[in-house]
Amino acid sequence: MKTITLDKVAALLSEHDNIKILTHTYPDGDCLGSGYALAFMLRKLGKKVNVAVDGNLPSKFGYLIEHYEEQDFTPEYIVSVDVAAPSLLGESVMQGVEKIDLCIDHHGTNSIEADYKYVDSGAAAAAEIVWQLLIPLGVEIDSDIATGIYTGISTDTGCFVYTNTTPRTHHIAASVMPFCDWNRINYINFVLKTRAKMKLEREILDTIEYYSDGKIAIIYTTLKMCEKLGTGDDEMEGLASIPREIEGVKMGITMREKEGGVFKISVRTNDGIDAAAFCKRFDGGGHPAAAGCSIEGDLQTVKAKLVAAAEETLG
Amino acid sequence: MKTITLDKVAALLSEHDNIKILTHTYPDGDCLGSGYALAFMLRKLGKKVNVAVDGNLPSKFGYLIEHYEEQDFTPEYIVSVDVAAPSLLGESVMQGVEKIDLCIDHHGTNSIEADYKYVDSGAAAAAEIVWQLLIPLGVEIDSDIATGIYTGISTDTGCFVYTNTTPRTHHIAASVMPFCDWNRINYINFVLKTRAKMKLEREILDTIEYYSDGKIAIIYTTLKMCEKLGTGDDEMEGLASIPREIEGVKMGITMREKEGGVFKISVRTNDGIDAAAFCKRFDGGGHPAAAGCSIEGDLQTVKAKLVAAAEETLG
Repeated sequence: MKTITLDKVAALLSEHDNIKILTHTYPDGDCLGSGYALAFMLRKLGKKVNVAVDGNLPSKFGYLIEHYEEQDFTPEYIVSVDVAAPSLLGESVMQGVEKIDLCIDHHGTNSIEADYKYVDSGAAAAAEIVWQLLIPLGVEIDSDIATGIYTGISTDTGCFVYTNTTPRTHHIAASVMPFCDWNRINYINFVLKTRAKMKLEREILDTIEYYSDGKIAIIYTTLKMCEKLGTGDDEMEGLASIPREIEGVKMGITMREKEGGVFKISVRTNDGIDAAAFCKRFDGGGHPAAAGCSIEGDLQTVKAKLVAAAEETLG
Repeated sequence: MKTITLDKVAALLSEHDNIKILTHTYPDGDCLGSGYALAFMLRKLGKKVNVAVDGNLPSKFGYLIEHYEEQDFTPEYIVSVDVAAPSLLGESVMQGVEKIDLCIDHHGTNSIEADYKYVDSGAAAAAEIVWQLLIPLGVEIDSDIATGIYTGISTDTGCFVYTNTTPRTHHIAASVMPFCDWNRINYINFVLKTRAKMKLEREILDTIEYYSDGKIAIIYTTLKMCEKLGTGDDEMEGLASIPREIEGVKMGITMREKEGGVFKISVRTNDGIDAAAFCKRFDGGGHPAAAGCSIEGDLQTVKAKLVAAAEETLG
């Protein structure tokens, strides 16, 4: 395994063909945006490139693939984008993959095994790294590429609100905006809500519990709630940010019940509390202010575990 | 009245001293941010400058004036910033003001009477114009100036979400971020919610009613609800945007009961439905996609009036 420079990333991509790009489970705006943007860039160089997505593409991101069609080839070069850990590589994505040749990521905790690795934890989104490949790859930006990049950086920063945003993030936004319908992207990702989502938000606000004098807030969704309201994974986006927004809260924890007696946990923190370190206790990981993990068990047991660990974290 | 260039604006400001900057009623992040930023800039040139604010500064914007103290002088040059119309100049702000010498604004509909006017309707915020004065004025940016400018552009664009955002907006954000605690500014303006506000949002989601096949959505707050939850005007911010966010909604109407048997109505529209024309039917007004009015009556009567008028509007 070798840590390399951005120019070396571009050189490796230039040298290879029949490329398969791997994205992570529960695909989000950044892994999809950066994955498809990179695919469109490499296709402009005449290469065959596909993006592997775990399960169905969330319907709201359909705009990313308006000009994308799966190509027919046997993958010879495997590139992971925005994938922080091996556990985030879904089975369907890994079909036929023996090893990862190149790993491109912005998670400081990246634990992917790959021949070559480029991890820039200062990038707000993997899409920032992909954007920086335009020049060394010699690719001219177009609408499809800009759409993916704007989607990646805007969704991973909560539209330039989160602490991971940097001046570079804004410069990249400024440079891609003229090439894409960023206004439609913002409407889809930051304005539009389904009726089911409105109902789910209302229900989830009923589940809020506070601990440690209000420094910890925890909310949850259960399979039963989602079934009753007819909500799917699409409606779950953004819920993780709710508890952290409350005045006085330092750790906001969101629990989502999944099939098989597992809860997917999202942790968002304020005031420098390390969310990644917290999630690592449960074999998860992520960023300092936004991390995740999975915990098996029933609602009350999992919640009790999380609250105990959170109280310990806050001292 | 003379329309002038940005350089002329800088020249006029350079030539004058004892400057009073006027902001608009119901002061928001942009009039305050751009007003104080301009004051800090001109003070760095050795001038005496005060900012006139109608009523109390909203407490959340206290961070703008951490290094600001009112100066003692008789105003000789009057500058309005971000004020679109004479009706938005509060009485206390206009005390001792006979005429406005210079009007700086970004509202295309600006109707202020002033000796000199600079209106850039392409600017997402008045703060974008103030930022552009740094170079012609020869002022070096500092923390106070950057704080005001970042506040103005972020609040007037919903943190870079709204359609008024441009590449220039992002470039300015990138350039001021290193000089201010933009993360704290975002937290105060876009993240933080009081517990009372969370409860109010939950309650208001229970009041949603749909009409015209879901093209109209209407929500309300009553005095009773607010009393029970202990919410004031601060918690009301942002509620008006809720119904418009729902999938399929073309007219989102928010009713807020005020003292004296009156409802304050906010209308937000999608797809070119004219909110201002709608509100004019009830002696209100505003922008094409965001307008307001007041209607006397009890909840059911006012709601029935609004729904009938909205159904008529949508045809």
